[in-house]
Amino acid sequence: MNIGRFLAERTRLMRASEIRELLKWITENVISFGGGMPDPSSFPAKEIMEVTREILSTKADKALQYGTTNGVAELREELVRFMGKVGIKVEGPEDVLITVGSQEALDIIGRVFINPGDYIITESPTYLAALQAFRIYGPRIIGIPMDEEGMRVDVLEDTLRKLSNEGRVKFIYVIPTGQNPTGITMSMERRRALLDIASKYDVLIVEDDPYGYIYFGDGEPPSRLKAMDSEGRVIYLSTFSKIAAPGLRLGWVAASREVIRWFELAKQSIDLHTSTLNQYIAAELLRRGIIERNIPRIKEIYRTKRDLMLQALSQYMPEGVSWTKPSAGMFIWLTVPENIDTGEMLEIAIKKYGVAYVPGKSFYPNEEKRNNMRLNFTYPTPQEIFEGIRRLALAIRDYVQRPR
Amino acid sequence: MNIGRFLAERTRLMRASEIRELLKWITENVISFGGGMPDPSSFPAKEIMEVTREILSTKADKALQYGTTNGVAELREELVRFMGKVGIKVEGPEDVLITVGSQEALDIIGRVFINPGDYIITESPTYLAALQAFRIYGPRIIGIPMDEEGMRVDVLEDTLRKLSNEGRVKFIYVIPTGQNPTGITMSMERRRALLDIASKYDVLIVEDDPYGYIYFGDGEPPSRLKAMDSEGRVIYLSTFSKIAAPGLRLGWVAASREVIRWFELAKQSIDLHTSTLNQYIAAELLRRGIIERNIPRIKEIYRTKRDLMLQALSQYMPEGVSWTKPSAGMFIWLTVPENIDTGEMLEIAIKKYGVAYVPGKSFYPNEEKRNNMRLNFTYPTPQEIFEGIRRLALAIRDYVQRPR
Repeated sequence: MNIGRFLAERTRLMRASEIRELLKWITENVISFGGGMPDPSSFPAKEIMEVTREILSTKADKALQYGTTNGVAELREELVRFMGKVGIKVEGPEDVLITVGSQEALDIIGRVFINPGDYIITESPTYLAALQAFRIYGPRIIGIPMDEEGMRVDVLEDTLRKLSNEGRVKFIYVIPTGQNPTGITMSMERRRALLDIASKYDVLIVEDDPYGYIYFGDGEPPSRLKAMDSEGRVIYLSTFSKIAAPGLRLGWVAASREVIRWFELAKQSIDLHTSTLNQYIAAELLRRGIIERNIPRIKEIYRTKRDLMLQALSQYMPEGVSWTKPSAGMFIWLTVPENIDTGEMLEIAIKKYGVAYVPGKSFYPNEEKRNNMRLNFTYPTPQEIFEGIRRLALAIRDYVQRPR
Repeated sequence: MNIGRFLAERTRLMRASEIRELLKWITENVISFGGGMPDPSSFPAKEIMEVTREILSTKADKALQYGTTNGVAELREELVRFMGKVGIKVEGPEDVLITVGSQEALDIIGRVFINPGDYIITESPTYLAALQAFRIYGPRIIGIPMDEEGMRVDVLEDTLRKLSNEGRVKFIYVIPTGQNPTGITMSMERRRALLDIASKYDVLIVEDDPYGYIYFGDGEPPSRLKAMDSEGRVIYLSTFSKIAAPGLRLGWVAASREVIRWFELAKQSIDLHTSTLNQYIAAELLRRGIIERNIPRIKEIYRTKRDLMLQALSQYMPEGVSWTKPSAGMFIWLTVPENIDTGEMLEIAIKKYGVAYVPGKSFYPNEEKRNNMRLNFTYPTPQEIFEGIRRLALAIRDYVQRPR
């Protein structure tokens, strides 16, 4: 039977992620910079094995049973301490909600805040899975351009001023540290300005911070927005996917108690709660300091791989190609001459040169630019990084010289 | 700051589950029949420990990494075999989607199929978390009364006939075996009639089957609807929560490839995918036959506890109280005289007599009846079952004799 007539209207808003669609073309001879996966050598597999054994020997009754929607108390308490070390002060574990990765938090945010037609604001470009999660709820998404210091707060203020009569701007979504896809880290000055502007126009801020804890620039990253938030305006998201392992599917939200209460109600009907076993594992990884001891190692792996990719880019890329130099995150954002459509170029890159990337257009809320691509440097091996960038440069030259 | 003005309209449809709200009153002296938790002695904790160790020793790179949205291939393949043994034939692992418990499948079903104002049909009473999940999407829910053979298919057909002009009946949601909350198992004759009627009026069937594999009546349970489905009309849901452990948060859907493809798109924006580690654990529990060897033990535990509760009910309950005798599931459905409002009675039951249950009204799509309660027999100990039923009988007598 054909199920077309049964589908809800909103299924028109469901699009397959291009990143995932593109994987279908990839064979084992293709070097992929397309994903966003951590280096598996950074996973604390042995430690996870040990803590799992202990948990299942001492409290299997609890760890294998149903749990509460907001999450295992021990984990929320550990997270209050963990966030405290980077200056994020939350009143207590009641201000924390455990989610199935940060992705679930993005869906919950859309569900709780977005009416069709509401405005939301993002960096442009921004994380495409956030766009995907929000779009289902029918918002009008306004992208604010970025420069090397992050979101252009002057453009943000102009935009909010113009929209203030219309009302209904719900939130500003930002990834301040090691932004996805650009790798840019927002400057301290911009962070302060962003908070001031959000306060002046009374909108919420969603701070997505998957990469803050593994910032590999010199010194510490600029302060989290949540750490500077005196009004309960910032909804802070982070994840264990980058500091421990994505296979646990664990993320968390820190926000005012009122926000958390609504999120909890939303989550209850989505999936009741997050895996109890995995939450106990994460709590124990934090309690024993395993995550904190693992972080310097992850930073070192990513710093080295970033350096390699930057070196390969310098060595191979033709004139007219530029790229970001990230101090955090997992991606380099490459800009090619404007006559190149990276979406169109992808097929020859994969099929003829055996190299894959994510075309930039999906990251723009309104798909305005076509001459960027996102390159992941955390998953490929050093050899793959060098060889893949060499192939990519060849693909670019070939595409530019093609007959039209 | 007050977040009231930021909330989406749909938050009005989010209600805290009464089951979960009620837990707040419960102290350690209260015997609770309120939850729906398995007996923790049924969890294969040692086996989970062993398979986890093996998985993390041999394929941590995959088990701790991101995975695909539809789920780990090995697990979907094992499930095709597992379902095959009860007569459910799916073409292959592409027809299976792994979810974060069955609850996520319920949310996905709402998201993919329900437009505001669409009709959906359920048994009345039915599983309240399904009502919660569907309600967010704004359907009109029509409850069909049940008798000891399950959903009244004559009433179902009358209803569909009346609605056929209006169109837009999307699906019929049923829990055919050990129904929640009533414990009723639908007869074979009714199952055939249900399929015929759904075909005649061209509506989908959602078959929620958490309890089929642990049916503890004589012989085997009646055939799954999905096993009799020749049209790809049945969307089949089940879960590892009752055959292994709820703490893994693993459920699955089996449906036509076209349905699975839409569900996969929906899930991608909800949470990307289900925990990879937990999926490998479940695959290995199936592959090694651990789940199948554990099932007879679970059946025995639940049969014994059900018998105990039935015996205690016979011994203590006053005239005018009746109850179901389930062959599957986790609940007995108690009916008290119509002058008793079990919602109102709950406070004295908990505070004065130290016993808790779930008032029946939340299980009715339209809250029409107030003289039922749901009693869980799987989680409390044998002693608690006897003592709790004794207390409940006292509470009923007290409530009936109260001055008005």
